Amino acid sequence: MAPNLDSYFQTVDDNAEHFIDRLRKAVAIPSISAEDERRQDVVKMGHFLKAQLEGLGAHVEARPLGKQPHKEHLELPPAIIARYPAQKDEKKRTILVYGHYDVQPANLSDGWNTEPFELSIDDKGRMYGRGSTDDKGPVLGWVNVIESHQKAGVDFPVNLLMCFEGMEEYGSEGLDDFIEAEAKPGKFFADADAVCISDNYWLGTEKPCLTYGLRGCNYYSIEISGPGQDLHSGVFGGTAQEPMTDLVRVMGTLVDTNGDIKIPGIKELVAPVTKEESALYKDIAFTMDNLYESLGSQTSIFSDKENTLMGRWRMPSLSLHGIEGAFSAPGAKTVIPAKVIGKFSIRTVPDMQPEKVDELVFKYVKEQHAKLNSKNKINVSLQHSGKWWVASPKHWNFTAAAKAVEKVWKVKPDLTREGGSIPVTLTFEQATGKNVLLLPMGSSTDAAHSINEKLDRRNYIEGTKLLGAYLHYVAEEPMGEANGA
Amino acid sequence: MAPNLDSYFQTVDDNAEHFIDRLRKAVAIPSISAEDERRQDVVKMGHFLKAQLEGLGAHVEARPLGKQPHKEHLELPPAIIARYPAQKDEKKRTILVYGHYDVQPANLSDGWNTEPFELSIDDKGRMYGRGSTDDKGPVLGWVNVIESHQKAGVDFPVNLLMCFEGMEEYGSEGLDDFIEAEAKPGKFFADADAVCISDNYWLGTEKPCLTYGLRGCNYYSIEISGPGQDLHSGVFGGTAQEPMTDLVRVMGTLVDTNGDIKIPGIKELVAPVTKEESALYKDIAFTMDNLYESLGSQTSIFSDKENTLMGRWRMPSLSLHGIEGAFSAPGAKTVIPAKVIGKFSIRTVPDMQPEKVDELVFKYVKEQHAKLNSKNKINVSLQHSGKWWVASPKHWNFTAAAKAVEKVWKVKPDLTREGGSIPVTLTFEQATGKNVLLLPMGSSTDAAHSINEKLDRRNYIEGTKLLGAYLHYVAEEPMGEANGA
Repeated sequence: MAPNLDSYFQTVDDNAEHFIDRLRKAVAIPSISAEDERRQDVVKMGHFLKAQLEGLGAHVEARPLGKQPHKEHLELPPAIIARYPAQKDEKKRTILVYGHYDVQPANLSDGWNTEPFELSIDDKGRMYGRGSTDDKGPVLGWVNVIESHQKAGVDFPVNLLMCFEGMEEYGSEGLDDFIEAEAKPGKFFADADAVCISDNYWLGTEKPCLTYGLRGCNYYSIEISGPGQDLHSGVFGGTAQEPMTDLVRVMGTLVDTNGDIKIPGIKELVAPVTKEESALYKDIAFTMDNLYESLGSQTSIFSDKENTLMGRWRMPSLSLHGIEGAFSAPGAKTVIPAKVIGKFSIRTVPDMQPEKVDELVFKYVKEQHAKLNSKNKINVSLQHSGKWWVASPKHWNFTAAAKAVEKVWKVKPDLTREGGSIPVTLTFEQATGKNVLLLPMGSSTDAAHSINEKLDRRNYIEGTKLLGAYLHYVAEEPMGEANGA
Repeated sequence: MAPNLDSYFQTVDDNAEHFIDRLRKAVAIPSISAEDERRQDVVKMGHFLKAQLEGLGAHVEARPLGKQPHKEHLELPPAIIARYPAQKDEKKRTILVYGHYDVQPANLSDGWNTEPFELSIDDKGRMYGRGSTDDKGPVLGWVNVIESHQKAGVDFPVNLLMCFEGMEEYGSEGLDDFIEAEAKPGKFFADADAVCISDNYWLGTEKPCLTYGLRGCNYYSIEISGPGQDLHSGVFGGTAQEPMTDLVRVMGTLVDTNGDIKIPGIKELVAPVTKEESALYKDIAFTMDNLYESLGSQTSIFSDKENTLMGRWRMPSLSLHGIEGAFSAPGAKTVIPAKVIGKFSIRTVPDMQPEKVDELVFKYVKEQHAKLNSKNKINVSLQHSGKWWVASPKHWNFTAAAKAVEKVWKVKPDLTREGGSIPVTLTFEQATGKNVLLLPMGSSTDAAHSINEKLDRRNYIEGTKLLGAYLHYVAEEPMGEANGA
């Protein structure tokens, strides 16, 4: 039975200016988690959010997360956790939603056209401001959903659990342990039946999507060292074996210009693409021009949509990020660096076991260096590893969300993955054991971590409708086994 | 006729403590040319030197060199030029000597064992202090020579022209034009019959040397660019051709671990080694342990002395210095750099024409990139070029210096080259058209640009004797054509 959402939708429309004003107040708080001197603003933003939810009758707690690792003089901003209605209705399902109230750094002088911490709306309804789309708009979307139900007099369809953090843009410090602890029996998140995260973006600008997969990332260092200290290339060039020569030659064997990973065994770890899966890519609303626009060039590996989307989501990739310890400034310096550290990472996909990837990488890198017959020492190590995530888009959490999209946007959503990582996704899945859905509000042109970040008015208002509609559909979606319960 | 130098030598010995005190006063002036806030100390040092020379009756001028390029608020320190005796004796030869009175930066916290700007003498006679060996000791050596002749009542054997600059450690800004102008007929340096520079080091610690060659240096940039801005490797890894991948692959084709330059045609530009030349290397006082000690490791290309010395002095070398625009900090960053600039340089030797080297490098680098079939753009360019220099060690300037060494040190000097560049050498040769001799005072362990720079008391005092003896021998050395006049 499709829920009747007309009066809810009408109330959202009627309150649009009020919701935009709520976003304006939130954007005005420069809650930059990466800047120590802004920590008080991050905390202020957390309390703003707490007050908004309490004003609507939610049960809200500001949970301390302790000292910030490596910056012990700083207290981490609190996790704002909430339950609405304040008293659990045992007859309804419980949906856990996540968002973050901190933002990336921003200065007008970086190239913003407007003050980054003043919401500026242009005549096309583009609402510019740091945090507008990442992630204050979506977080306030949930607040708007609650308020609209109250104003419309529509019964709230689920028990809503909320988890809003203030350190997402600085590695979500302290959050993993907190989520794991609160997912245990009797704790705050224990009753969740499914999880929904609104912190990513549509693939383009016109068509909504549901996201069911993320790539993982294994990040490596290759350290090569020889001389006791940096040398002068005039005095030692031609007499010393240079670590930089070795490193560049080894890094040059990892991947080619077309992204082909040269490490034997890596490709064999990738789950084969089925015909069924292969067919999915054809219909996704994405063009090569979308890619060229976001690249700022036409220097793509593939010239077709299908291979490009699979290259981004479905296949592993290897990127060389840089070299530590070599000369990296502008100008000229005639140094022979004594110790250089090459950095690269592999984006991983199903069914690549991270430990197996490490094993293949270590073996290959050492073999390539051994071939050089160098006296320099090599050490290859893993800096960090985050696993890929993939959910079943046939799960009732997804089918409910798909119905909500069709109701609000009059179109079936694309089922997408992301090439990057949102580590908290896997944390929620593993801690709760429940299905996690990524339900984006913003579009591909929102420039989340860049200058002139924005959220379109349409995406914010229709997105608020969508989040509410999702709760109605997910409340009544059949949970049959075939449906991934 | 060997000059009788006994009373001169005795006077140097008798005044040793006085000369060391002169060096102590000079080291106490932190004349760091690279630090704007020390500019007044550089100027103070120039005037200290001027006063010392004037106190001995020399004609001295402090010549302004204008504003500092790119730092127009700073006046360059003056060139201190002097003539001794103040009135030219037309019957004597004129020798032009060069040195510099500025020093490298130094802070106790860099790891110095003693205050860098206080001369500290240990029980082995090692005189620690910034500038002790580079180049205040040698510069004051010439002052000591004048004073010792006066005190010993020995007739000064030549007309001595002096050129002491205060910007050597910052690229000798302003000096080239000055030297060229003053070498013209009727100008200050016009009468020079030969040039002597004391600003390099013995090859080891026991045996003096005369230096007759320097390698040149061509410094290149390879810029590779593709995307319009830096990209996130999660979103774009596997879909964009990455400039860093191209650069590392191109840089990897330039040279191998054993220093073999892979650019076709480079080796063919090198003057063939004659049997006669080859034989020279055997007798030079140098061991592989000397190399290992200065490398701080045993990661040498060659295991024998002869190839090592030729690799340093006589053969070209190619060093990869680093990459600008890529991630170079500690830690992990998942960036795909949009534009990266690889830096490398080739040390050049006779008969490599710098322009021919450029041509071969540009052609090869572009070919290597073309092989990658990349859509990224490449640009390869020369950052700067300094030509190699080689003088005839059979010239009377050298044979005179060799006799002086044998007189003072009781041993024939090694004839050496240097792997690095001292650009002023070529400037003096080209401006005056005369033979230039490099006559070092310090030894290989003096740590000129490093922490704990020192000059051994023995090298300073015997070195002062050597500079004076050189003036006597060069005054009477036959100038026959066979002798390279």
